[in-house]
Amino acid sequence: MVGSVGNGLLDLGGREKVEPLPKEFDPEEIVDSLLHSESNIVGKEEDGTSRKIVLGRNVHTMCLEVKEPEADDEITGEREAYMAGVLARYRRSLIDRTKHHLGYPYNLDFDYGALIHLQHFSINNLGDPFIESNYGVHSRQFEVGVLDWFARLWELEKNEYWGYITNCGTEGNLHGILVGREVFPNGILYASKESHYSVFKAARMYRMECVKVATLVSGEIDCTDFRAKLVQNKEKPAIININIGTTVKGAVDDLDLVIQTLEENGFKDRFYIHCDGALFGLMMPFIKRAPKVTFKKPIGSVSVSGHKFVGCPVPCGVQITRLTHINALSSNVEYLASRDATIMGSRNGHAPIFLWYTLNRKGYQGFQKEVQKCLRNAHYLKNRLKEAGIGSMLNELSSTVVFERPKDEDFIRQWQLACEGNIAHVVVMPNVTIEKLDYFLRELLEKRSHWYQEGTISPPCLAAEIGEANCLCFSHKN
Amino acid sequence: MVGSVGNGLLDLGGREKVEPLPKEFDPEEIVDSLLHSESNIVGKEEDGTSRKIVLGRNVHTMCLEVKEPEADDEITGEREAYMAGVLARYRRSLIDRTKHHLGYPYNLDFDYGALIHLQHFSINNLGDPFIESNYGVHSRQFEVGVLDWFARLWELEKNEYWGYITNCGTEGNLHGILVGREVFPNGILYASKESHYSVFKAARMYRMECVKVATLVSGEIDCTDFRAKLVQNKEKPAIININIGTTVKGAVDDLDLVIQTLEENGFKDRFYIHCDGALFGLMMPFIKRAPKVTFKKPIGSVSVSGHKFVGCPVPCGVQITRLTHINALSSNVEYLASRDATIMGSRNGHAPIFLWYTLNRKGYQGFQKEVQKCLRNAHYLKNRLKEAGIGSMLNELSSTVVFERPKDEDFIRQWQLACEGNIAHVVVMPNVTIEKLDYFLRELLEKRSHWYQEGTISPPCLAAEIGEANCLCFSHKN
Repeated sequence: MVGSVGNGLLDLGGREKVEPLPKEFDPEEIVDSLLHSESNIVGKEEDGTSRKIVLGRNVHTMCLEVKEPEADDEITGEREAYMAGVLARYRRSLIDRTKHHLGYPYNLDFDYGALIHLQHFSINNLGDPFIESNYGVHSRQFEVGVLDWFARLWELEKNEYWGYITNCGTEGNLHGILVGREVFPNGILYASKESHYSVFKAARMYRMECVKVATLVSGEIDCTDFRAKLVQNKEKPAIININIGTTVKGAVDDLDLVIQTLEENGFKDRFYIHCDGALFGLMMPFIKRAPKVTFKKPIGSVSVSGHKFVGCPVPCGVQITRLTHINALSSNVEYLASRDATIMGSRNGHAPIFLWYTLNRKGYQGFQKEVQKCLRNAHYLKNRLKEAGIGSMLNELSSTVVFERPKDEDFIRQWQLACEGNIAHVVVMPNVTIEKLDYFLRELLEKRSHWYQEGTISPPCLAAEIGEANCLCFSHKN
Repeated sequence: MVGSVGNGLLDLGGREKVEPLPKEFDPEEIVDSLLHSESNIVGKEEDGTSRKIVLGRNVHTMCLEVKEPEADDEITGEREAYMAGVLARYRRSLIDRTKHHLGYPYNLDFDYGALIHLQHFSINNLGDPFIESNYGVHSRQFEVGVLDWFARLWELEKNEYWGYITNCGTEGNLHGILVGREVFPNGILYASKESHYSVFKAARMYRMECVKVATLVSGEIDCTDFRAKLVQNKEKPAIININIGTTVKGAVDDLDLVIQTLEENGFKDRFYIHCDGALFGLMMPFIKRAPKVTFKKPIGSVSVSGHKFVGCPVPCGVQITRLTHINALSSNVEYLASRDATIMGSRNGHAPIFLWYTLNRKGYQGFQKEVQKCLRNAHYLKNRLKEAGIGSMLNELSSTVVFERPKDEDFIRQWQLACEGNIAHVVVMPNVTIEKLDYFLRELLEKRSHWYQEGTISPPCLAAEIGEANCLCFSHKN
């Protein structure tokens, strides 16, 4: 079965017993054990033997089929029993998958128990958060409170910003780049090649010219290359995506140097900067030595994800831009009694309440403590990896630890590591404790000793990805 | 206060006592009654006296400020108490607003109690639903089950479709039109002027030429005008947005006539049709006499909302397109171990479970019963309005009752009616019962008798909006 992670972890180096992982959620089991029906009632597997990227096919690896209820279902209760079984089994798999997660920048440690009685309302913030809609089941008052908090964080006055709570970081990037394009319709989009793929998706969607800029080994934008590309395109304004934490290496682009490069090359008042702060946009303000992301600098928009550092059961994000820019985008829509400068018209009204709740509970001080803990634990992980002879890298302002890609796909999947080429990463979020990292490290070292047994294959060289200084391959380890 | 609906409804025509509505959620009250603190702790109102559309301003009409916790909050529990108070009051307002809702096509009648134990997981279906991601806390197996169901509904084979669960109807339209543009890069977008505003937003985002087509009084696309506009633009392919239920009048465009018009005017194999089925896309298949939306006809994509007819606490939708079209859009993204042909990268993983749950419980038969009930109740409302001398219209395949816009904005807001010009509408969803309609009608007639007292102003003429036959103004009532 694809995604099966059921191989034994029982006795790792004799240090302690670890409970065996439950197998990945297998709908067929439910059928067999619960209902004794044919297997095609619940789920099926097609082409489930190998896991690969297939363009232009929809491969039904696993699917819980929707079946028409039987006429007597209401009497027998069979349907209810079947569904309860599916859901209970699914819940167990979620618990396991949540426990064994290290690769994505999601804080899985949150408690929204206090909000449970709001979950069944159809809360929808249609259109612009600052303009009442006729639809009454909304949460605008929470949304605006959250937006005010972020505007203050990034130093934009209450009457000078506009923003909304998005569905995810991608929507923030799509919005910021669209605002940039409306401000400079013939502008060229510049983004470092390590930018999130949504930036390049935006260029294509919006039919914008797009120039990819090289990066340093750290993952930061290479301003020498940026300068060269600007000089080649002097006649058109520049729209720049700045990464406040790249996806793979957690690298923070040097905002001040980018602005300086623009101004020194004749782009003064002819540029728009969007800051993609998906993860670190909310962590950086709490790190004293970090350069500031602030609207006191000539930036146009900042976006950040809500389900990442804050933690939230639904993907969401915050988008803040200058009010002066938004006129270019908005249009009156009488139907909603709302103009709509958002990308999505209907917006999840639960997300603002989750964010409002956490911001109120933790506050600046709470976040600061969590950021410190994340950075500390990230350093711990990096040091332990180095001690064990595994090439790894940790950018100064980051909690993303990049290291040698584990050789075994099952191991990668079990720990849900995000990988690219020869490298993988762990993003140390507030829910990633030292205990969890130790558990992970024990298992990694145990497995790795089998992958690279003496005399056979060697670990890959990572110099191209993380630099010679961080690589511990055969050629670079001294 | 903006949005206050507290005026008495106590004795309506002596028929029965109706409980007075609680006032709209007023955060200041909480402060006064619960905490006796300064009013700026919780909420504030700025410019709250009138309600209007303001371009280029963010008007903070109501906002629940996020405050930094006090140092002793953990000891005193004040913060917890304050938040609990805010949330309890908010919940009460949601109950009221949910009860008095008629204007938007949202089925507010659902029970997802069985899913309560899944609500606290951070479920995220990153990227393509058919390709596993490394992130394990997902619900792809539910999502694909739901997509299969919809593909079957619209008659596209399992191995010939591609789709995903979107954040809302708007995302479906954005996706469908983008697919159309990728198939015909120099195509012109045609849409009737009564199409949802997201269609015109898409044209602007994607830098597409867009031609607005006139409509009949019913709200359907006017194919005579469509033909004329096609003939003027013969050299470029056509991308057409078809409305399966327009937003305001619930009008269903004549798909067969549109296809015939295209083929007769030299556009054979040079067109792409996106069907915006936001609401009726899921109701029409259950109406026997309704023309069929099916992929056996030359259409490219269909989208439908999940929070409308099905009912769902979060906005969501379903997008189905032909697999052959999707290659044009997709790109490999190693980071996610997923190519991404969706618009949003992170996608709410709870939505597919809600949909899966309802589809399984209700099935085709359940939906059919509900559709019949909606149409029956819509006819009841229209007939009662006509009897009372109020101009109104109900399209044959629709449960959207269009009628004279109530004169009083408070009344409109109380019942959350959607309005445009002189008309308002009620969308009869499964949760709108005869009792609710009677309650609404009683109040409307009572109020209206004051608005149009003899000898003063008369009700507006609606002939331009709903046709002379449906208008009951002074000139048209005979």
